[in-house]
Order: sequence, then C-alpha cells, then structure tokens
Amino acid sequence: MSEPARLAAVAAGPLGDAWPAPIEFWFDFISPFGYFASLRIDELAARHGRQVEWHALLVGVTVLKVMGMKPLPQTPLKGAYLARQIARYRRRHGVALARPAGAAPMNPLPAARLFAWLRVHRPENAKAFARAVFAGYWAQGRELDQPEALRDAMQVAALPAALAEEVLDAPEAAALLREEVDAAIARGAFGSPFFIVDGEPFFGVDNLELLDEWLGRGGW
Amino acid sequence: MSEPARLAAVAAGPLGDAWPAPIEFWFDFISPFGYFASLRIDELAARHGRQVEWHALLVGVTVLKVMGMKPLPQTPLKGAYLARQIARYRRRHGVALARPAGAAPMNPLPAARLFAWLRVHRPENAKAFARAVFAGYWAQGRELDQPEALRDAMQVAALPAALAEEVLDAPEAAALLREEVDAAIARGAFGSPFFIVDGEPFFGVDNLELLDEWLGRGGW
Repeated sequence: MSEPARLAAVAAGPLGDAWPAPIEFWFDFISPFGYFASLRIDELAARHGRQVEWHALLVGVTVLKVMGMKPLPQTPLKGAYLARQIARYRRRHGVALARPAGAAPMNPLPAARLFAWLRVHRPENAKAFARAVFAGYWAQGRELDQPEALRDAMQVAALPAALAEEVLDAPEAAALLREEVDAAIARGAFGSPFFIVDGEPFFGVDNLELLDEWLGRGGW
Repeated sequence: MSEPARLAAVAAGPLGDAWPAPIEFWFDFISPFGYFASLRIDELAARHGRQVEWHALLVGVTVLKVMGMKPLPQTPLKGAYLARQIARYRRRHGVALARPAGAAPMNPLPAARLFAWLRVHRPENAKAFARAVFAGYWAQGRELDQPEALRDAMQVAALPAALAEEVLDAPEAAALLREEVDAAIARGAFGSPFFIVDGEPFFGVDNLELLDEWLGRGGW
C-alpha cells in the first residue's frame, strides 16, 4: 500500500471502508518455515497498516494427498536442500530451533484442531495460543501431540488449561479444522507458510521480502 | 564479497589465487524461471567480481526420476501457483514470454546436449548459444527441439550453423550431457534455476536477492 493510501486507510479508522483486507497467513505447526514466518508476519503487516488472519492447514492433506507429493524432508535432493535452507535462515535471522530439520514431525492434529476452534470461539486468544504452540514445539522442543500437552500453551494464551481437553473431546474442533483445510485448498494455499494478500498468493518464508515490496507498492 | 576483498581479487587478476570461484548456474531450457535467471545472473555476479559457469540439467531426470515428483505445472495447486508466480515475475521485471506458462514443453535434449558439447569444445561461445536458445524458445516462441532448429542459435553465437547437426549426430554430446546431469545430482542441484556459490545452494529465481545479499556479505 502506498503511503497516501495507508494514511487514508488509517484516517478512515479500523472500521472504515478504506481499511484494507487482512493478510491471510496459512501454516502447519510442524513446518519450521511456518514457525519462522509466524515470528515476522504481524510486524511486517503492521508496517503497511494491515492485520493478519492466522489459519492452520495440514500439509499431510494439501501436499501429500491433494498434490500427491512425498514429505519434502524425505524427497531425494530436496531434503538436503531444505536442511541447508533452514540452517541459512536460522543464521540470518538468529532463530534457534530445538529440533533437527527433517526429524519425524509430531502429529499436528490436536494443536491444529484446537487452534481452529479457538479462532471461532476465542478469537482474541487464538493467535497467542498458536504462538505458544510454535514456541513450545520449535524453540523448546516439546512434543505437543496430546491434548494434555497443550495445557501450557492454553495458559500462556490466558485460556483455561482444562479447555484444551474439553474442546478436543467434542467433534466440533475436528470439523472446524476440516473446513479450514478445505478453505485452504479452495483458496489455492498448499504449503507452510502461505500468504494471500488481496487475492495474490505468496508461498514460502523466502517470499516475505517480495510480499513486503508488494504491500509497499500496492502490487504491480 | 566485500569491496576490499573484491578489489584484492581484481588486483590479483583472473588467474590470481585471490580470484573467487565462479558461481554455478544450473538450468533447463524448458524452465521459464531458468530463462528469467539467465537474464540477470551474470550482471548480478559481476557486481561482486564473480564469473558464472552455466550448466544445463534436465528436470525430467532430476525432478521426475530422482525426486519422484510429477511435472510441477500438472501438480494440483502448484500448477496454478506457478502461473501466478510467473505472471507476477513478468510484470515486476518487464519480461515478455511468447508461450503460456504450463504449455507442454519442447524436448530439451538437442539444445541441452549441444550446449553440454559447446561448454567443453567451444567455451567462449557456449553462453551466447544458451542465451540464443532461451530467447528463441521463450521470447520468440520457437520450437527448438530438432537439430536443424538450432542453426539460428548457433549463428547468433558466431558458430557454424552446420555444426549443430554434426555434433548431435555423434554420441559425445549425449554423453557430456549425462555427465552434467549426474554432476548436478551429485552437487545437490535439482531445479531450474539452481545456483551454487562457494558450496552454498540457492534454488529458484526468487532467491536471487538472497544470493545477492550472500555475495555482498560474504555469506553468514
């Protein structure tokens, strides 16, 4: 967005017609690049007067089932490249990871289902929960694949710890996540991170600089 | 490379010990992103006092056979994303393409075999030949999948037109291309474009800015 357009949007206020649409940020908790993006996207968007809508998807559905690909870390040549790319990104941005690239991922379903439920029912806490899951899994190396393991993340997000198990015992959370994954596919989002800005798709944390330029110029 | 390091390298002359290693640029003629990269990589490298070694690979071997993937334009979700990415890149950099993204590619073997032969036997003309093939295929929309169709590219590169058919009638060109593709796989290069800078791999034209930063900082 150009500076005059941004100022006009700000002047119109958050509910004004000129307020630009939020950026969609799609991620899978088991994706290190999704974690890297989660650390930057809100700050980047804010510099352009934008909000960010966080959405969980499952690469086990989009990449493996819909696209018919193997897990990338197990794909010849690509796996080795990803490890180099992760190491280079970590050094450039000073991000520590508590688990090696390419290690077997946790089952992301409980965390993703809970996040999908929180987005709808506790929208003011959902992003803090997602950040806590990312930090717990990637920065602290904790396994967060059981409902009870998600209690800490709930508390960090100022939510009742016991709500995690309660939500995951009911079928609604799974249904909400399925809706999100279906929406991702319908929107053309497949990997993690995946961003959609005013209909324009950007895949990969390496495209954040391009996305930044896109927002600054108002597209091209 | 830092400015003092570059000046030291320049002072040492092209055969001096301080002259930095060339950048490897791997491409497939049928890749639009390989074409885009071919238009920028030498200028980018020169700004850092670097030469560029051009190498043809075959994504039909690396991506389809070794990695076991489908052609990306035919991969669900990825194909549509690639078309958006190509259109965005074209608008940003003002590059015209005479063929639609995702159209069935030509057989790249004659052009790639001839280039592999020229690299060894006519190194001073090889890059000009590759540029002429890229321009003919992508900017002019010509089919360059037959030896006789490569005559014009030979002439643009100041080579005898008849040499194309002569080289492609002998088995050496095919053997040299096989060696190149094997070398690509051994070096970890798979896609187009793929760059290797002092052992560091960079995949994709969207990583040229990162590569530029890497050269400027001398890595990190």
